[in-house]
Amino acid sequence: MADQELDVLGIGNAIVDVIARAEDDFLAREKLAKGSMSLIDEARTISLYDAMGPGTIISGGSAANTIVGVSSLGARAGFIGKVKADDLGHAFTHDIRAMGVHFTTPAAHGGPSTARCLILVTPDGERTMNTFLGACQNLTAADVDAAQVSNARITYLEGYLWDPPAAKEAFVKAADIAHAAGREVALTLSDSFCVDRYRDEFLGLIRGGKVDIVFANEHELKALFQTADFDTAVAALREEKALGVVTRSAQGSIVVTRGETIAAPAFPIEQLVDTTGAGDLFAAGFLAGLTRGVDHHTCARLGALAAAEVIQHYGARPEKNLLDLARDNGLI
Amino acid sequence: MADQELDVLGIGNAIVDVIARAEDDFLAREKLAKGSMSLIDEARTISLYDAMGPGTIISGGSAANTIVGVSSLGARAGFIGKVKADDLGHAFTHDIRAMGVHFTTPAAHGGPSTARCLILVTPDGERTMNTFLGACQNLTAADVDAAQVSNARITYLEGYLWDPPAAKEAFVKAADIAHAAGREVALTLSDSFCVDRYRDEFLGLIRGGKVDIVFANEHELKALFQTADFDTAVAALREEKALGVVTRSAQGSIVVTRGETIAAPAFPIEQLVDTTGAGDLFAAGFLAGLTRGVDHHTCARLGALAAAEVIQHYGARPEKNLLDLARDNGLI
Repeated sequence: MADQELDVLGIGNAIVDVIARAEDDFLAREKLAKGSMSLIDEARTISLYDAMGPGTIISGGSAANTIVGVSSLGARAGFIGKVKADDLGHAFTHDIRAMGVHFTTPAAHGGPSTARCLILVTPDGERTMNTFLGACQNLTAADVDAAQVSNARITYLEGYLWDPPAAKEAFVKAADIAHAAGREVALTLSDSFCVDRYRDEFLGLIRGGKVDIVFANEHELKALFQTADFDTAVAALREEKALGVVTRSAQGSIVVTRGETIAAPAFPIEQLVDTTGAGDLFAAGFLAGLTRGVDHHTCARLGALAAAEVIQHYGARPEKNLLDLARDNGLI
Repeated sequence: MADQELDVLGIGNAIVDVIARAEDDFLAREKLAKGSMSLIDEARTISLYDAMGPGTIISGGSAANTIVGVSSLGARAGFIGKVKADDLGHAFTHDIRAMGVHFTTPAAHGGPSTARCLILVTPDGERTMNTFLGACQNLTAADVDAAQVSNARITYLEGYLWDPPAAKEAFVKAADIAHAAGREVALTLSDSFCVDRYRDEFLGLIRGGKVDIVFANEHELKALFQTADFDTAVAALREEKALGVVTRSAQGSIVVTRGETIAAPAFPIEQLVDTTGAGDLFAAGFLAGLTRGVDHHTCARLGALAAAEVIQHYGARPEKNLLDLARDNGLI
């Protein structure tokens, strides 16, 4: 395993999603901010679960979703993350391996249960996420396999890793190993509230050269640079050394370097069902494009295609083979 | 609870479905008979799960699906079935209660885990089911609450209850209590292979007056009367004392009594996604109609409407509110 070269190695919180439909007044009653990701403790997890409707359980986790998308696009993918050896941990492990992803992080045999995210999808397709981190809190630097990171062309890290206390050490260790091996490191800012929690540290990672590629949506970018104006945020991003990739929902995406800004449109969709995983799958398409050596515009179109697939059904992992879909759309 | 009158009380195997897409050659490789329900042991459950693709976990169980449909149609519904107190048992309990169903059977704290059904859905929408009965084997007559059965207008039992050894005693006890209280008892034949396993016992139940209403699809009916000819099977059914309700997929259904046969068409659908739950939801609509006191043709149309909803998405439980759907279609 460690000797095999990977295109993309993701490190993130290993989470199982519990998805339920909900009306807007349910969100109001439960005091949930639509579209956000909130961290909840075990007691709140139980009370919110009791209050919500019937759930569909599907493997999730932001970086894990991305890595599954990368694999579905035909690239060699690996994942590092921590589950517990319980029913949901077993399901997570099965599902990611069934998509061809190398996943060998040992499951915890004690401590909190496998992480779950209670996702409420409103009739407008927007998702509101409530995450119980559980076993993710047991991910440590010891779980980072140095040989695996050294052999991965891109190591992809999620900002959410800053939430469980020990995981940020795993993050930094992986970034350092990757760079020592001449590899690239990518970071997704994850969520605007996550940026608010860790703004200085994220800026430190970017300015300290720990990350080479930054994925953000417009809310996260504005939060990072503490501005309400998108153009101001993009101008600030342009001053950073990293390659910036910014998604704008139906308005498509832009790729920002010092020298230029490349805009790419979104793919048309028939019906918006559930936005969960849109950003994750955009990153999957973009990363798969990078490892295939295509230009940034095509990378962004691959991202848009993968995002369009995932928002037309419930769950944050692709239901169709994305490589076939990319071929059908002339992108590969 | 026991003092509250229910419209329909279901007794069945409490099962969580693990649904995955599969190609026809996967079924061939795994030697699975398309469209059937096979019982599998724990070792086979593990090996089949390892071989199949990523799964979506949704609460299932034949009678449980029916009861959820009955509740979604606005009737007062209850369920008796056995889960273990594990993650999947917790999910099953949450999901059925979240649909307004009275479910109070105590979970097992030892023994095998909550039952799961590995369901492979082929591109034609057909489902092939592989059931590990697990904790269902711990359902006994002691789990049948006499007061609850006495207070239910219809007790609905699934033929699959003949598979776990102790459950048939629970079935017979419930039927006797219901009849002693002047209530009705309904049976679904469940599956043609199930009929093959227990033909004499099912015929004994019908002829012994233990059941008043029999639900079957055409395969099950032909298996029951050991004939390849549908009309011959219907003629045999007509000679029995029970009310017969026979579903024929896209050809609709017929309601058979000694005096007459009433045919009702299926509802048109836009796209067949997954036939899992079609028969269960047909029974839900029919039973809800009976408890509302509408004529048999309207009962059959309610069944057809509920079945049409459930086959247009993955999973065997309704995603839409069936009462609203029935109103929109002028059936209520």
